[in-house]
Amino acid sequence: MLRFGPIAAAAARRAPPRPRENLTLPWPPSLSRQVRAAGGGGGGRVVPVLKTPKGTRDHPPVQAALRDRLLSAVVSCFKRHGAAAIDTPVLELRETLMGKYGEDTKLIYELQDQGGELLALRYDLTVPFARYLAMNKITNMKRYHVAKVYRRDNPATTRGRYREFYQCDFDIAGQFDSMIPDAECLKIVHEILSDLQLGDFVIKVNDRRILNGVFAVCGVPESKFISACSTVDKLDKVPWEEVRNEMVGEKGLSPEAADRIGEYVQLHGGLDLIEQLLQDPKLSQNKLAKEGLSDMKLLFEYLTLFGITGKISFDLSLARGLDYYTGVIFEAVLLQQENEHVEELVGVGSVAGGGRYDGLVGMFDPKGRKVPCVGVSIGIERIFSILEQRLKASGEKLRTTETQVLVATPHKQLLAARLKLISELWDAGIKAEMLYKKDPKLLKQLQYCEDTGIPLAAIVGEQELADGVVKLRDVSTREEVDIPRGKLIDEIRRRLEP
Amino acid sequence: MLRFGPIAAAAARRAPPRPRENLTLPWPPSLSRQVRAAGGGGGGRVVPVLKTPKGTRDHPPVQAALRDRLLSAVVSCFKRHGAAAIDTPVLELRETLMGKYGEDTKLIYELQDQGGELLALRYDLTVPFARYLAMNKITNMKRYHVAKVYRRDNPATTRGRYREFYQCDFDIAGQFDSMIPDAECLKIVHEILSDLQLGDFVIKVNDRRILNGVFAVCGVPESKFISACSTVDKLDKVPWEEVRNEMVGEKGLSPEAADRIGEYVQLHGGLDLIEQLLQDPKLSQNKLAKEGLSDMKLLFEYLTLFGITGKISFDLSLARGLDYYTGVIFEAVLLQQENEHVEELVGVGSVAGGGRYDGLVGMFDPKGRKVPCVGVSIGIERIFSILEQRLKASGEKLRTTETQVLVATPHKQLLAARLKLISELWDAGIKAEMLYKKDPKLLKQLQYCEDTGIPLAAIVGEQELADGVVKLRDVSTREEVDIPRGKLIDEIRRRLEP
Repeated sequence: MLRFGPIAAAAARRAPPRPRENLTLPWPPSLSRQVRAAGGGGGGRVVPVLKTPKGTRDHPPVQAALRDRLLSAVVSCFKRHGAAAIDTPVLELRETLMGKYGEDTKLIYELQDQGGELLALRYDLTVPFARYLAMNKITNMKRYHVAKVYRRDNPATTRGRYREFYQCDFDIAGQFDSMIPDAECLKIVHEILSDLQLGDFVIKVNDRRILNGVFAVCGVPESKFISACSTVDKLDKVPWEEVRNEMVGEKGLSPEAADRIGEYVQLHGGLDLIEQLLQDPKLSQNKLAKEGLSDMKLLFEYLTLFGITGKISFDLSLARGLDYYTGVIFEAVLLQQENEHVEELVGVGSVAGGGRYDGLVGMFDPKGRKVPCVGVSIGIERIFSILEQRLKASGEKLRTTETQVLVATPHKQLLAARLKLISELWDAGIKAEMLYKKDPKLLKQLQYCEDTGIPLAAIVGEQELADGVVKLRDVSTREEVDIPRGKLIDEIRRRLEP
Repeated sequence: MLRFGPIAAAAARRAPPRPRENLTLPWPPSLSRQVRAAGGGGGGRVVPVLKTPKGTRDHPPVQAALRDRLLSAVVSCFKRHGAAAIDTPVLELRETLMGKYGEDTKLIYELQDQGGELLALRYDLTVPFARYLAMNKITNMKRYHVAKVYRRDNPATTRGRYREFYQCDFDIAGQFDSMIPDAECLKIVHEILSDLQLGDFVIKVNDRRILNGVFAVCGVPESKFISACSTVDKLDKVPWEEVRNEMVGEKGLSPEAADRIGEYVQLHGGLDLIEQLLQDPKLSQNKLAKEGLSDMKLLFEYLTLFGITGKISFDLSLARGLDYYTGVIFEAVLLQQENEHVEELVGVGSVAGGGRYDGLVGMFDPKGRKVPCVGVSIGIERIFSILEQRLKASGEKLRTTETQVLVATPHKQLLAARLKLISELWDAGIKAEMLYKKDPKLLKQLQYCEDTGIPLAAIVGEQELADGVVKLRDVSTREEVDIPRGKLIDEIRRRLEP
């Protein structure tokens, strides 16, 4: 989905204007950035600058393990809902991406013309999904896609906003009965945010048809709907007065129209509000708004059956940035962190979002055939920032390997015994390590277990070899038992059972 | 590792010359490639060309599921050997990649200069790993990395050679006792190729120091070592006569030197050959060769303890393309496919490779400090091609989802009952789906189970609702049993136990 992400269009639009990197200034030639090494073994050599590109980062083992855990939780929810995985290339033809992102097109990474096709890095997973559906003439599909996307936006890495970041998307394409897939998308957001125990959250829901209906009955000309939309979208950041000023000043709406809009977009509630608006003398006369409201009512019925309306807010100020939404839109917001200190450090807001986009696939079809779609994107980078801060605060040590047994020797001249034993363990599927030294000290070997969280040590010395046993040591209790060699694998498996 | 891959340098070097895409010819402007849509709903609209970039592909669900299975097998082996995961950006500073790949530098994808840093797509996972180690001053690490890399080579997609492809790398960095990590890398290749049941294979092993020693004692000037190396590397594709001609003709070696080289590089064997060469009057006088041979002997001792020498061949013709190898090099080759028909279609050769590169990290260190490394790269794309062909030939239907239960209703007006039940299943962690129709026919629902391999259907009708039960249907046996609602989850779990 185009919906959002750490460096998302929506976020960029909502945030106060930030100084943008000068995108046209040519960078000084490569050489001038290189460091002439001084002294040491490299005397006078030119060594490249040691960094990752701006707005990108490495994931060292702890971060990689934490991310893996997070992505697993998200993917397991997507699988629980019967989605199949697909993958598309990181590279797309430039023309595939053009004309899909409005103003944000300038944030697309383009590849140099080295001959051949003109290419760009994908900006999200939604446009490639739509291209995939149209290209393969697929009219019906439930898929998930977890992959990196690229945006030349201004990074804010402390808040989890990067130029290379993961998106986790779940989308349902196909012509179905109203609001059933839409309700499932909201259930998915609810499940994931609950599973991850990120604290309290609310999922704001609105419908583009309702918003457009509001604009229409308030006297906004249709040509100004999109621009009015993006102003309304700021209501979660600034008070109504400011939004009203922008509408009248910058956007050229009449003060009366703005005031009328203000009466609507400051509303939020549940089924009661939907009923109230369905009775609204003006809004109920607008065909689009009525459709949107009836569907919203249906959606709330389904969400009631799912038992999740407690976290859902029908919020008329929710607009979301992208042009291509055609129906339901939604966004999940964390209400507070588990402690205020963390909140201050991380400062995350929206952690999931999505909506219905019934026209995008048609843009790729030669005959313009539409495939209705609805989907959700989980804001994994922001959630990752929270989990990272939480891990730091807790002092918990995350294991970065899964090694179960260290094969150790108590004295010298036993490398062969270690190699033979570890090979037996590997062949039995046991996760095992040994130190890459011919004659490591036993203490060093045991210390390695403690440092890396290996629960068991299998120790073979001359005595054990003579007796046909292996000394199995529980690293945490320091208890040691001699196990007959032939029973070692079973004993290790038994000890490692959950 | 730089070692190889579907579009690998080594492969490119070995293959007969292929017509190269004209890399300088400017592509016609984007518009000229667009298709003017004819008729239908899109009358006259300009629709982008529906394709993925040359040498790249989508992975539809079946391929994505197969790839997932393959990558899991590889990663689980890496984890069994105690490696931690890291991740690095797909984008690197251009200067990080420059000067590392020799002639193949022209195959690097460069990003357009859009202001800011000059970037490129990573060409492999080895140079980013070396950059990561140097940047973080890490001198000791065992890591794996599974990710996509990019090469503007000529694709040969039927043989699994793409411009975007996965590499699966395992590397051990650090100063350790000789040949212990090197032996583990070979054990890993052996485990993975055995686990995947790809048929018979051989792992060829050599050492750059032995090769250089051979060149030296045969009278090749040091300046021609690298070029002689790349000629020797062709011995697995063409007969010695041709290699000899190239040495004398193109590479300018004397016929006598070539003949002397020929006597060595056509040798292959095991420990006996190592012993023989250690006694060789000329070679044993060369310091480098002697070091290499002693280490090779040690390696074979360790591989004997691992019980894998049956698949290892000390092969003096193995050279591998990359400049930066400094010690042991190896390459695994499939000897035959399970049936000849498949072999003909796929035509894969090398499926894993690697070696020792003790100098690469030092290229990134301002003081040139070295971190010795050895690693292996699994040629996942070639293996994937084999598995894909095998899957097709078998007619086996690979499930693309993991759905365990379809929630179904036998007649109309029961959408609410389905939504309530499926929500209970999701909340209990059961993988469940329902059709997105208000009133789907039971037959359609059961057909969906058969089509997608869902083993169970949970059916609720008026009668079941009244009785407080759910009819649980085994899709394959068509057996149906009424289960009290409160016991449904347990019963489903019981049935799904392996």
